[in-house]
Amino acid sequence: MAVGYEALETSTLPLRLGGLKALSERIGPASGWQVEEVGDGNLNLVFIVRGAGGAVVVKQALPYVRLVGDSWPLPLTRAFFEHEALVRQAARDPGRVPEIFHFDRDQALIVMEYLSPHTILRGKLIRGERVTDMGAVLGRFCARTAFRGSDLAMEAPDKKADHALFLGNVELCDITEQLIFTDPYYEAERNHHTPELAPIVADLRADGGVRDAAQAMLLRFTASGETMCHGDLHTGSVMCTGGDIKVIDPEFGFYGPMGFDLGMLLANFLMAHFSQPAHRDDPADMQGWLLGEIEACCAAFFDEFRHLWQTERRGILYPSALDHGEVALRALERHIWDDAMGFCGVEMHRRCLSLAHNAEFQTIDDTALRARLEARNIAMGRALLVDRAAVPDAAAITEMARDFNGKDMV
Amino acid sequence: MAVGYEALETSTLPLRLGGLKALSERIGPASGWQVEEVGDGNLNLVFIVRGAGGAVVVKQALPYVRLVGDSWPLPLTRAFFEHEALVRQAARDPGRVPEIFHFDRDQALIVMEYLSPHTILRGKLIRGERVTDMGAVLGRFCARTAFRGSDLAMEAPDKKADHALFLGNVELCDITEQLIFTDPYYEAERNHHTPELAPIVADLRADGGVRDAAQAMLLRFTASGETMCHGDLHTGSVMCTGGDIKVIDPEFGFYGPMGFDLGMLLANFLMAHFSQPAHRDDPADMQGWLLGEIEACCAAFFDEFRHLWQTERRGILYPSALDHGEVALRALERHIWDDAMGFCGVEMHRRCLSLAHNAEFQTIDDTALRARLEARNIAMGRALLVDRAAVPDAAAITEMARDFNGKDMV
Repeated sequence: MAVGYEALETSTLPLRLGGLKALSERIGPASGWQVEEVGDGNLNLVFIVRGAGGAVVVKQALPYVRLVGDSWPLPLTRAFFEHEALVRQAARDPGRVPEIFHFDRDQALIVMEYLSPHTILRGKLIRGERVTDMGAVLGRFCARTAFRGSDLAMEAPDKKADHALFLGNVELCDITEQLIFTDPYYEAERNHHTPELAPIVADLRADGGVRDAAQAMLLRFTASGETMCHGDLHTGSVMCTGGDIKVIDPEFGFYGPMGFDLGMLLANFLMAHFSQPAHRDDPADMQGWLLGEIEACCAAFFDEFRHLWQTERRGILYPSALDHGEVALRALERHIWDDAMGFCGVEMHRRCLSLAHNAEFQTIDDTALRARLEARNIAMGRALLVDRAAVPDAAAITEMARDFNGKDMV
Repeated sequence: MAVGYEALETSTLPLRLGGLKALSERIGPASGWQVEEVGDGNLNLVFIVRGAGGAVVVKQALPYVRLVGDSWPLPLTRAFFEHEALVRQAARDPGRVPEIFHFDRDQALIVMEYLSPHTILRGKLIRGERVTDMGAVLGRFCARTAFRGSDLAMEAPDKKADHALFLGNVELCDITEQLIFTDPYYEAERNHHTPELAPIVADLRADGGVRDAAQAMLLRFTASGETMCHGDLHTGSVMCTGGDIKVIDPEFGFYGPMGFDLGMLLANFLMAHFSQPAHRDDPADMQGWLLGEIEACCAAFFDEFRHLWQTERRGILYPSALDHGEVALRALERHIWDDAMGFCGVEMHRRCLSLAHNAEFQTIDDTALRARLEARNIAMGRALLVDRAAVPDAAAITEMARDFNGKDMV
């Protein structure tokens, strides 16, 4: 643990951070601060600090997994990687991540912009609230960070040094490696699932093709350092108003496949879609909107990727001296898309089968209904994972989603 | 440059290294040393130091590319990476690399086993000398280093830390990125080729599919850190007697695809094969032997890989909990093979088109004959690179080699 690290408390925070000009100049003197702990994630402390002149967020890593407790230690260095990732994302898609006011590596804390009246996107989608341009904005974020962090854009020495830096984020990658790619596919101790899903789960775990495909994706996750990924881009890592969208929490940042974040994000849109029948009497409109946003997200990703390919391709890959054309771009897009489909499939699985489930399913009290909706999600995830070569484009995804949405498997 | 670095000379070497017990205890006191500089490679100084009790090799990096001169600086850290790679290779395939007696990072020098009466494999193949089990031994070397340096075998944190370390070998990777994957496919300034090849070269460079495929392989080279590769495994990096085989010179060591070294090696066997008609009146026997060794190399690679898969799969990939079977192994083998074919193709190209050519072609004085043989090599490289998905196995390669060996294109 870092020297002198001490977890903040609402009572000690003003004393400990009151001397920071970055705070006091922004929100007023510590004597007037009101501190609230609002962390509802799995890992960290999150405080809102309100003063006479405004508010900031203070996020501090704990030396263990908050969801599990101190039996699962987790290094404080993740705050460092989160900070490093935020800095890069701010440069690659300006305005899309919270502004940072202060970072303290020893205390593993980041003081950043208080996003208000933003709320977590996952909750909005559960409540049926739409966000203008959700798909397009997040698709562009994925494209910009994927392209600008890769050897298509960066100087090779800078990219290699940055890749080496992020290879230090070992423990967070370990969580992904185990919880996303491995645990869902066997009876791991920390797994849990809705009881009525038992036959579906047994069938999935009995399918060697599924297990093999998941591990092929793990090989891509662990070895294909194509770009700096957010690493955990689900709808709980996005905060929105009706119109503004911010991406938060990149502590799982790592160098991985260009299709990783896109695939994870699409999985979470699809889960929002499949869960809708439990959250409103007439889910069709919201489901239709979500599928439209999936198509908009993919279109924005590839439009933006193409734009950057044409205007910012200054790295070692596909150099202008070789005069690459449309065919090369399409093959690269296909490669990214294939990866995205595989990652999308495993994310859909782990959220129903592994340790960390998501609220759109978990908040369904009627377990029979929950199982019915989760079963659709698991079946589509399986199709994407195993037959990803047969999914040509976003329209194919939304068609599959409509199809599985009408199927009752339990 | 490292503090106090000074290039060795034959006259200064005994004075400078005479105090090292690792040397004097092995070969006797410096007063009796005879020093000979024998470096015939592109990059370094290589001395043989003979004493009353034996001999050692002293290899020292120069701060520039020896082949080009001090206009092309190259960092001394490559000696560090060579040493690190040798240590790992010695552990992963014991006895296959020279023993190391001393390493001095500041002086960028390695004192190692003097291999005698070994000579460079490339020269042997030019002279028509056979080496017992050449293919099998080198195929096993590739399999052992590929498997044991990957997430199939290593602890994930160790593998990530090691990957981060080798990402520092920036300048040597840059050479590969430019000279192998990019320069051959356009009129790069430092390129040269046999004059009579001009129409073949023009045709190759006009083929967008070739350029695109080479860059797809560059993406794999630069981003797919599956294992620690030798990085420059051609027949000039192998020293043999008729029966003993050692792999040397891993200063290009990097984390890359599991199929990289295998593909590079196969390319060099194929070039030895295509060049034979210039080196002897009756090339058929030697060519037949070489093609047999190519098949033996591939068979040994996949036999050994399978053996390690069954006995040493203790990493995060394809864990035993998921009970992966034959199908998973075959898919992984196919993935490695695909990569190997692509890398094989680019290596065959760059050795005739880029900066650093190889002796089997370069020593052919009759440029018309040289061009005829190189044209076969380039055409087969193109087929492997562009249509690699259509090459199922080693038998397909040797069949292609026989076929192209009968074609006259210039």
